Amino acid sequence: MKNFIYDICTKVYFGSDGLDCLGKEVKRFGKKVLLCYGGGSIIKNGLYDKIVAILNSSGLEVFTLSGIEPNPRINSVREGVKICKTNGIDVLLAVGGGSTIDATKWIAAGALVEHDAWDFFSKWSPCDKALPIVSVLTLSATGSEMNAGGVISNPDTNEKIGRIAYPLRPKVSFLDPTNTFTVNRYQTACGSADIFSHLLEVYFAPNDTMFMLDTFIEGMLKTVIKYAPVAMATPDNYEARANLMWAGSWAINGFVGADKSHEWSCHPMEHELSAFYDITHGLGLAILTPRWLTYCLKDDNLDRYYRYGTEVFGIDKNLDKKSVALLSIEKTKEFLFNTLGLDDTFTKIGIDDKHFKIMAKKACEDSFINGFIKLDAADIENIFKACL
Amino acid sequence: MKNFIYDICTKVYFGSDGLDCLGKEVKRFGKKVLLCYGGGSIIKNGLYDKIVAILNSSGLEVFTLSGIEPNPRINSVREGVKICKTNGIDVLLAVGGGSTIDATKWIAAGALVEHDAWDFFSKWSPCDKALPIVSVLTLSATGSEMNAGGVISNPDTNEKIGRIAYPLRPKVSFLDPTNTFTVNRYQTACGSADIFSHLLEVYFAPNDTMFMLDTFIEGMLKTVIKYAPVAMATPDNYEARANLMWAGSWAINGFVGADKSHEWSCHPMEHELSAFYDITHGLGLAILTPRWLTYCLKDDNLDRYYRYGTEVFGIDKNLDKKSVALLSIEKTKEFLFNTLGLDDTFTKIGIDDKHFKIMAKKACEDSFINGFIKLDAADIENIFKACL
Repeated sequence: MKNFIYDICTKVYFGSDGLDCLGKEVKRFGKKVLLCYGGGSIIKNGLYDKIVAILNSSGLEVFTLSGIEPNPRINSVREGVKICKTNGIDVLLAVGGGSTIDATKWIAAGALVEHDAWDFFSKWSPCDKALPIVSVLTLSATGSEMNAGGVISNPDTNEKIGRIAYPLRPKVSFLDPTNTFTVNRYQTACGSADIFSHLLEVYFAPNDTMFMLDTFIEGMLKTVIKYAPVAMATPDNYEARANLMWAGSWAINGFVGADKSHEWSCHPMEHELSAFYDITHGLGLAILTPRWLTYCLKDDNLDRYYRYGTEVFGIDKNLDKKSVALLSIEKTKEFLFNTLGLDDTFTKIGIDDKHFKIMAKKACEDSFINGFIKLDAADIENIFKACL
Repeated sequence: MKNFIYDICTKVYFGSDGLDCLGKEVKRFGKKVLLCYGGGSIIKNGLYDKIVAILNSSGLEVFTLSGIEPNPRINSVREGVKICKTNGIDVLLAVGGGSTIDATKWIAAGALVEHDAWDFFSKWSPCDKALPIVSVLTLSATGSEMNAGGVISNPDTNEKIGRIAYPLRPKVSFLDPTNTFTVNRYQTACGSADIFSHLLEVYFAPNDTMFMLDTFIEGMLKTVIKYAPVAMATPDNYEARANLMWAGSWAINGFVGADKSHEWSCHPMEHELSAFYDITHGLGLAILTPRWLTYCLKDDNLDRYYRYGTEVFGIDKNLDKKSVALLSIEKTKEFLFNTLGLDDTFTKIGIDDKHFKIMAKKACEDSFINGFIKLDAADIENIFKACL
């Protein structure tokens, strides 16, 4: 296992009364707050009014940026940066899911540099400072509320690029499971598929692993398998929403993968899908994941599949390893496509092989693509084809 | 489940090269450092010289406090406080196991108040500030390296009292598994029993629990069961030492018990044992734990034992719940007394029933004693008797 530094300092208010401390926490970082949000669901369900009332009564000066997209665009980031620079914003408050929090992170970074925010991705400009970020999570999925990464899309160049930078980790996050009660069945399924994928990417990373952390990943996989269908069937089930929410944060805050290199597979492939077709991230991951597992299965890595199958799905330990491995992939499909009810092919969601070559080439340029087994552009194209 | 605040901000350098950054990290907090340690094992194994060389070459002014006892005494704390006040110490560096770190915490708190340090325990004087603490861990057991608690003994009053206070959580901890290679077989067993007990106290706490956190506890219990005997047989097995070390920290840093009230059972009982007989904490816990499990077993709480037995020990899920519960206690004994080889009765370690009444009464005064099922002084005396 690798040596590592553990340094995850997001303070989390978890539970149904969390927002009681929102004003106090935001005020720690200054007086002028930029409230960032997405398409307006928080206006419909009343959360927006509640939060603005809290901020106002705490004596904060509130600015707003609305309309942050799913697969958030660099133009939203630029707009936020402009508001920050014009008004001397002290602190950013993201209210939403991963897209809103990701965009807010890069606004926080962009506010403190002279160059255009896209340079963080096109030129890998240094990101060593950012305005403080507070988040109120409304969708369990990306884990952005407790990690230091953010993914931004640029429609002009068909690019969707993720980057991790230490100053981007939220200082405080408010995780109130009741704020996810209004997430619909489909988005709950996609969010759960995203969490599931984060866990599998780390679980199947190629290094020697720390047994204890493997047990945690298995526990979170079982948590998603148990509670995603409950939340889909009964959206206001607190226990289900709470378990999905906390699993979403811990799946990808750096803890369970700390002992490994950060080289993933499905996420870089999916980023190309979303960049070219603007599909929902979790859906793309769901379609890719079982094909990637099948493509990577080799005689010399059966042990990992065996452990996955027996520990997560309870497959009979007495079966031979190859059978367990194949069964574990079937069980994965069953969860993603039957239990979560997600579409199981690219064809069904209107994606054909037109851009596969260029998408495979671009995915290959991602520095993270070497997770589990090394994949070149031809491998990735093959995996894409298997998804048709 | 309870609402909770998650706020665990100890930065951890985990691995075999951790000390490379020791000087840099200590210097963040000032120039004058008080190095606190125990009985001299770090002098014998060379760690003391290594650390002093690092501190000196980093330009730090080094003061020392040696001789901190197992079950650390209030007089050591007083001595440390005096050094801090006399010399204007900026930062404390604890090098050792839980006893050394616990004592260092209360030195850090005592250095910033006028009153005697024992007032923190006898009068529950406020503890809202402390000098910054850095730790280098040499024994996997108490979890003090990543939590905000510390237990101090006062031989004058036969008291051993634990207290948690936010400012006491170490700012930085260095967890290098190779620093535990020299821990002997018996201390490895006692440390593992301590970790095991921390996990069981939370696992059997009486609240509705978060499924995900239960899976983490089960994972850590399995980790201890798997690796404690490996570390005992091959003291320089890095994988075993690393897993025990990280499990020790996460068993009791506040994470897995965040959704529950902090009411424990075996620890308050054991503190009375150590206070009266100065025995090793983990040994006392090992003897108490199975008797406590047996005493608490009722028809209406079988579910918890059933889950414990099937998930942690892999007992057949098809057996009836009562059988699984009884078997789970047998498996617990087997691990503590056969695998770890610890003495299984008070009689074997020279403890008779002489002080049971007063010990039970005192344990009962502990605010934490209501874990799992409520215990009064008569219950505790019965549990003590079952340990003879």
